[in-house]
Amino acid sequence: MATLGDIGLAAAINIITAFIFLIAFAILRLQPFNDRVYFPKWYLKGLRTSPTTSGAFASKFVNLDYRSYLRFLNWMPDALKMPELELIDHAGLDSAVYLRIYLLGLKIFIPILFLTWAILVPVNWTNNWLELSKATYSDIDKLSISNIPQGSHRFYAHVVMAYAVTFWTCFALKREYETVAKMRLHFLQSEKRRPDQFTVLVKNVPPDADESVSEAVEHFFLVNHPDHYLTHQVVLNANKLAKLVEEKKSKQNWLVYYQNKYERNQSKRPMMKTGFLGLWGEKVDAIEHHIAEIEKLSNEIAEEKDNVRNNPKAIMPAAFVSFKTRWGAAVCAQTQQARNPTLWLTEWAPEPRDVYWPNLAIPYVSLTVRRLLMSVAFFFLTFFFIIPVAFVQSLANIEGLEKTASFLKPIIEIKPIKAFIQGFLPGIALKIFLILLPTILMIMSKFEGFLSISRLERRSASRYYLFNFFNVFLASVITGTVLEQLQTFLKKSVNDLPATIGVAIPMKATFFITYIMVDGWSGTAGEILRLKPLIIYHLKNFFLVKTEKDREEAMDPGSIGFDTGEPQIQLYFLIGLIYAVVTPLLTPFILVFFALAYVVYRHQIINVYNQEYESSAAFWPDVHGRIIGALVISQLLLMGLLGTKEAASSTPFLLALPVMTIGFHKYCKGRFEPAFIRNPLQEAMMKDTLERAREPNLNLKGYLDKAYLPPIFKEAESDSEDDDDDDDGDKKWAKDNVLVPTKRQSRRNTPVPSKMSNGSSPNLLEIQEKDRP
Amino acid sequence: MATLGDIGLAAAINIITAFIFLIAFAILRLQPFNDRVYFPKWYLKGLRTSPTTSGAFASKFVNLDYRSYLRFLNWMPDALKMPELELIDHAGLDSAVYLRIYLLGLKIFIPILFLTWAILVPVNWTNNWLELSKATYSDIDKLSISNIPQGSHRFYAHVVMAYAVTFWTCFALKREYETVAKMRLHFLQSEKRRPDQFTVLVKNVPPDADESVSEAVEHFFLVNHPDHYLTHQVVLNANKLAKLVEEKKSKQNWLVYYQNKYERNQSKRPMMKTGFLGLWGEKVDAIEHHIAEIEKLSNEIAEEKDNVRNNPKAIMPAAFVSFKTRWGAAVCAQTQQARNPTLWLTEWAPEPRDVYWPNLAIPYVSLTVRRLLMSVAFFFLTFFFIIPVAFVQSLANIEGLEKTASFLKPIIEIKPIKAFIQGFLPGIALKIFLILLPTILMIMSKFEGFLSISRLERRSASRYYLFNFFNVFLASVITGTVLEQLQTFLKKSVNDLPATIGVAIPMKATFFITYIMVDGWSGTAGEILRLKPLIIYHLKNFFLVKTEKDREEAMDPGSIGFDTGEPQIQLYFLIGLIYAVVTPLLTPFILVFFALAYVVYRHQIINVYNQEYESSAAFWPDVHGRIIGALVISQLLLMGLLGTKEAASSTPFLLALPVMTIGFHKYCKGRFEPAFIRNPLQEAMMKDTLERAREPNLNLKGYLDKAYLPPIFKEAESDSEDDDDDDDGDKKWAKDNVLVPTKRQSRRNTPVPSKMSNGSSPNLLEIQEKDRP
Repeated sequence: MATLGDIGLAAAINIITAFIFLIAFAILRLQPFNDRVYFPKWYLKGLRTSPTTSGAFASKFVNLDYRSYLRFLNWMPDALKMPELELIDHAGLDSAVYLRIYLLGLKIFIPILFLTWAILVPVNWTNNWLELSKATYSDIDKLSISNIPQGSHRFYAHVVMAYAVTFWTCFALKREYETVAKMRLHFLQSEKRRPDQFTVLVKNVPPDADESVSEAVEHFFLVNHPDHYLTHQVVLNANKLAKLVEEKKSKQNWLVYYQNKYERNQSKRPMMKTGFLGLWGEKVDAIEHHIAEIEKLSNEIAEEKDNVRNNPKAIMPAAFVSFKTRWGAAVCAQTQQARNPTLWLTEWAPEPRDVYWPNLAIPYVSLTVRRLLMSVAFFFLTFFFIIPVAFVQSLANIEGLEKTASFLKPIIEIKPIKAFIQGFLPGIALKIFLILLPTILMIMSKFEGFLSISRLERRSASRYYLFNFFNVFLASVITGTVLEQLQTFLKKSVNDLPATIGVAIPMKATFFITYIMVDGWSGTAGEILRLKPLIIYHLKNFFLVKTEKDREEAMDPGSIGFDTGEPQIQLYFLIGLIYAVVTPLLTPFILVFFALAYVVYRHQIINVYNQEYESSAAFWPDVHGRIIGALVISQLLLMGLLGTKEAASSTPFLLALPVMTIGFHKYCKGRFEPAFIRNPLQEAMMKDTLERAREPNLNLKGYLDKAYLPPIFKEAESDSEDDDDDDDGDKKWAKDNVLVPTKRQSRRNTPVPSKMSNGSSPNLLEIQEKDRP
Repeated sequence: MATLGDIGLAAAINIITAFIFLIAFAILRLQPFNDRVYFPKWYLKGLRTSPTTSGAFASKFVNLDYRSYLRFLNWMPDALKMPELELIDHAGLDSAVYLRIYLLGLKIFIPILFLTWAILVPVNWTNNWLELSKATYSDIDKLSISNIPQGSHRFYAHVVMAYAVTFWTCFALKREYETVAKMRLHFLQSEKRRPDQFTVLVKNVPPDADESVSEAVEHFFLVNHPDHYLTHQVVLNANKLAKLVEEKKSKQNWLVYYQNKYERNQSKRPMMKTGFLGLWGEKVDAIEHHIAEIEKLSNEIAEEKDNVRNNPKAIMPAAFVSFKTRWGAAVCAQTQQARNPTLWLTEWAPEPRDVYWPNLAIPYVSLTVRRLLMSVAFFFLTFFFIIPVAFVQSLANIEGLEKTASFLKPIIEIKPIKAFIQGFLPGIALKIFLILLPTILMIMSKFEGFLSISRLERRSASRYYLFNFFNVFLASVITGTVLEQLQTFLKKSVNDLPATIGVAIPMKATFFITYIMVDGWSGTAGEILRLKPLIIYHLKNFFLVKTEKDREEAMDPGSIGFDTGEPQIQLYFLIGLIYAVVTPLLTPFILVFFALAYVVYRHQIINVYNQEYESSAAFWPDVHGRIIGALVISQLLLMGLLGTKEAASSTPFLLALPVMTIGFHKYCKGRFEPAFIRNPLQEAMMKDTLERAREPNLNLKGYLDKAYLPPIFKEAESDSEDDDDDDDGDKKWAKDNVLVPTKRQSRRNTPVPSKMSNGSSPNLLEIQEKDRP
């Protein structure tokens, strides 16, 4: 059992680790040659140019200004300075709302901290149950619920606190839901014109012997939406084209690599083998080979492009249908079109960047089967993943390694190395599995046929959370593999489950404290270092980069990663809520995590991440739902725990809590969720009217014409024909959307303009407009 | 243990009982003075007039034509003759589809009967497990799964049969769902113009300081549906008015009663006491007293009517909004109107007859609470109803009775009477509770705030089914009160539940066979006798009826009673599916029930029931869902049963069944359910276009103007002002809708015109039209 001292030591170690990361970051980020790793967002916005273009040679790579090192933690207040409205402008609503999850953590747990420390810590501490029971115990246990004698009336304090925690959490959740819903509606309302506002995605266009898909779509909507239909874009199967373009890009990279190599050492033409991974096959001149290959691919791409455009088989039974007004689009997206509810399915189109193109052609019938298959697969993945991992582990022993790689034998035979490998090898299969898990989950979501990247990420997130819940949380509480647990659970009564888990909860407090410090504190501090992108960027920079444009491409800003990040936060909500009443000592550790993560991710969002799409915070209902779930779980576990404490008189009072919480959830669902799913006609009409008054002569058709052409198509186009005027409209839109003029000057430190400059003042106006009844 | 002989005896008794009912019915229905009890539907349609107006005096009351008695079972083929399309015309789609539930039972169980008898009966019979085990057993058990030895490979036959049953049931269900969905769409399509096609019910109109509700509604829809909005009717709180009108009607009935009494015996003016139930108080002249009271009430009604019309507090924040086109109404019903999703809620308006007026004003927030409360209440009602019943039983003992009603003491003290009361009294509380249960469930549904009678009935039906499942089915299988079961279940593992119940299943076969015969056979045969309406009609006829109109009002045609009837059928589906594989002997009993009930209810629907509303078979998804539920339960129980039979090798093969069944259900939900909830725009547009071509000068506003005035309002109006021209429009519509001219001649026997006459030929045309791609 860990004492307070042990915890203190562990905390010290993790704080020091976190500090080392932060200092390393503070130093690295000041070096000009890392600028593109730590400030890619600004480059992408065109507000920062390479520092290498000016100044002395040394200062191009190393920052020699010693004063800047003194203020090495300055990025923290800088990251906090940017007001939220400007943040939305700068990084989009998704990012701004994502940060609010951390803030919500702070809002929920700070009052809980004060309450529980003021009431429960004295209540727990002033008992001597553990002393009397003569069990081994630590100081931490003296502060926890374990120290209360069986059947004591003091448990009423915990019951009351459970009510307080529930009420406060629900209150915070409701306020937050309200705010986010308002932010979303305001964001949608104040947005510039976007193609998806006018567009509806139509799936399952029925095949017709006499008409092409395009004609069928046009006729159907001209008949059924005669006053509103404007134009449409059929969905083309460009998956093969995308593959070819991808291949060409990779070959081009290699060409550049070999050219660079040749430039540095002109005495020798670089050679390569044509076989698998360049390991065998005929030896050829690498540069010439690649030039020829690229030529070949370019021809193939041109051919495939023709094919996709003209071959009716490449046209999928789906289309993006655009309307004359937002009202028309909102109506079409929310209504059923045809008598057969599996035909002419309409939904609000995701914005063009958010569309996941390969899934657009999956027929309706196979969707049910696919979802069913994936639920079964996920069940097995969660509960039986340990079987293949164990199998690989049994293969990956030292003898096997010696056999397959006999040249390594002399090295492996050295004792300390052998010992290290023997200790390390079994774990590696599990580690690799866990690293691959988000990718596996994402592939599963893609297989299920969701049509937008945001929905894919949300689906993966919810699955990742479930996996974490069973394999991280439950597996830590009840030691043993999940498979064993499953057997235990099936054999036990439903009634006993909360008790079985509940009893184990207080004993695992120290484990979770350590977990929070390692994963939450050091992990978050490590995130800001961006070691992997840093290394890859410098490798690319060395081998591939020739022009400024290449350097731009070598940058990897990354994105928030909702599918892995949010489930991690949710795990902290779960642990925090469960221990809030049981072991109040844990709450401050959770709080430190939320505070640190908030600052770090705010910095990353401002300076690094480049969100690929904008879903306007469509993920909030998921976030809300999972916190509610954590709350209910914490209530059930507390009931189970108190049930075993012979506190029969106080336990029944807890019964109302889960019922009330679920009722609250239903209320919130009805009250706020529609704002995240449907598009109210009132809003649409308001925007239409405003627009008609402002721009009566707008050429909407020209604006929407190419908006939903598959991106790979445009890319291939601009690639082979070097920017013909086809996609100008779309490019212009993209530019309109991204470029926001600001008066930024400084470049060395993170520049944060905090004044509400011109760029954001229209927002203010629109808020006033919105707030009018 | 019952032998085959015992079952045969019980069957004989029940068949005789059923025959007695049927013969009694055959005789009673031929008597002219019962005509209005057994053929009210024809009177209501105006196709039959009282036989008392013509012929000899005796033949007015008694049928003296002996030949008609010889064909006393003729009503059966007569009931079956009417083709379905004509039935829909005659009684509405709801009734026609309701009959299809019985047909579906026949469709599902006839092939199952052949299959299981051909395969399972020999497989079961050719074992001697029961002989060897020396347990007491009967011939029935020899035919059931109990006769297979532990761990036998013969269980594979049952597994295969379980698959066959599941596939066949799913196939039948899918085909039926498809047919019903088509019938519904066709019905909606071929219907005459109805106000609800153009109308949307808007709830939660936000209060506005400057505008009345009516103005707010008009402005909102003029702004947000400028091209489609036509008119609206605010909802008036006429609950008090309704109460007054009701009271007046009752007083009028009493007045008529006293007047009749006085007429018969002119020597004595009838007197009455004014106090409670006429038991005490001042003695007054009954006729004068009632005339005065009616006068007073008439004034109050007039006053209240003015009040409702002009007092803004009587106007509820809800309105029926009508549109110029069906397309506009369909759009408005399916979309979200306002930014705040709890304001301006729209839904497709129920047809005027179907609206449940008192619930129109319940605010949105209280709905969640009301539903939550009712779920909790229903939980307690289901599992703890036995507690108050037992309490009442403990009070209603013989001593208590003697105390409260001491004048009865001499009678009660007589031995046989005392014994009878002692045996009878405890049961009476339970019996009364069970009789009241549907009413209680209906009150609960009303409290939940549903807005149409059809939805109220559907909600009550699903609750009644759950109650039956726990308190009839489960309580019969596992002997003991449900409360005890609940405790057992909570203490047992989830895994053990199917086994616990599954093992008890084969032992209860004889019980359920008896249950089917008593409740299903005799009960159904009793339904056709209509004893209660018969008695009440003749009582009313004797005391109240003076004019032909009074006689019309004395008729009580009743209706299908979906809220009690459907759950009963579902119980048979459940029992049938569970025993299909376990005890094939039970299936024929189920089949007889379905066949008998089909004929009986078809007769009743044609001749008796007068459906109060038309929901266009909106209940089918519920029916489908409950049969799927029964299927899954039967699969789980079979798994549990086989698990205990040491048939470890065959049980896992069953695992896929529930998964597949649930997958099938999800598929059906996606494929067919929207047809029951949403109104496709394509259909709406088609009807609009047709109508515009046929009647270009239609005055729709005039047609819709008073359609959604509360009925009580019209009633009060026509009552006091004797049919002013206000509600002519609506009356005309009602007439349009109900009166279908047929060439009916015969009056004595059930007249069933079977030719597809003019009335139904347009349907055929429309079917052809519909089937075109």
